[in-house]
Amino acid sequence: MTAYELRPIGHVESPLTRREGAPRQPDEGAPAAWLVFQEAYAAALDGLAPGQEVLLLTWLDRADRATLTVRPRGDATRPPTGVFATRSPDRPNPIGLHDVHVLAVEGLRVRVRGLEALDGTPILDVKPHLTGDR
Amino acid sequence: MTAYELRPIGHVESPLTRREGAPRQPDEGAPAAWLVFQEAYAAALDGLAPGQEVLLLTWLDRADRATLTVRPRGDATRPPTGVFATRSPDRPNPIGLHDVHVLAVEGLRVRVRGLEALDGTPILDVKPHLTGDR
Repeated sequence: MTAYELRPIGHVESPLTRREGAPRQPDEGAPAAWLVFQEAYAAALDGLAPGQEVLLLTWLDRADRATLTVRPRGDATRPPTGVFATRSPDRPNPIGLHDVHVLAVEGLRVRVRGLEALDGTPILDVKPHLTGDR
Repeated sequence: MTAYELRPIGHVESPLTRREGAPRQPDEGAPAAWLVFQEAYAAALDGLAPGQEVLLLTWLDRADRATLTVRPRGDATRPPTGVFATRSPDRPNPIGLHDVHVLAVEGLRVRVRGLEALDGTPILDVKPHLTGDR
C-alpha cells in the first residue's frame, strides 16, 4: 500500500527530555513549552491567539512502531491490549495528540501550557477544537 | 528536516465519494461507514468493542498540502485565516481527526457511526478518548 510522507512543520522546546520521566496525561504535571514553527509555515499560523485551546499533533519520534499490543503500565499480570485501544506512544503510526492552551504567540514561537511531549518532538499540525470534540 | 513515513493500516468504506458532498462536521449528517484494517494489524485491534467512542486518524489523501490560508467556506469577502486556526482538510500534513462511535467489530472490519471521511480514505490510527479530551 502507498506510504505517505509527513513534513515536520516545527518542533517542541520543552524541559521534558526523557521518555521515562514524561507524564502520561497533561493533568499529571505537564510543563509549559514552546512550539517553534518553521518560517515557511508562518502564514498558516495567522489566527492563533492567546487563550485558545487547540489540538497539537506531533510525531512521537522515539516510539517503537513495531509494537501492536501492550500491558497497561507494564503490569505483567494483566493481559495485553491492542495498541488501538490504548494511548501507548508505541504504535504503527506514532502520532501524538495533545490538548493545549495557548499562552502567547510571538512570531513563529507559540507558548503553550500542559504539553506532555518531549523536547525536540516534531510538530505535524495544529487544529482548533470543534463543537462536539471531546 | 527529516521526513517521516506513514504506513496506512487500513481504509474507509463509505457511501461518501465526493469531497464536495461531504459534511464538514459529523452533526451535518455523516453516514455510518466501515473501517477495514489490514491483516498485519489484527492484534492491535484487541480491546476495541461496540459502544466505545474512539478517535480515528486518517490521511486526507485528496487534500492540497500547499494551502496555508483559507477563506471561511470560500467567502471572498472575509479575510483569509491560517489553516492551523481552521479545520480545513487542505494543510501541510492533512491528518483527519474523527470522533466516531463503534457500532460493531467483525474481525478486521469495524462499523462506525458519524464518519465524514470519503470512501477509500487511508486509516492511520485509532485511539481511545482520555479524560480531559474535548
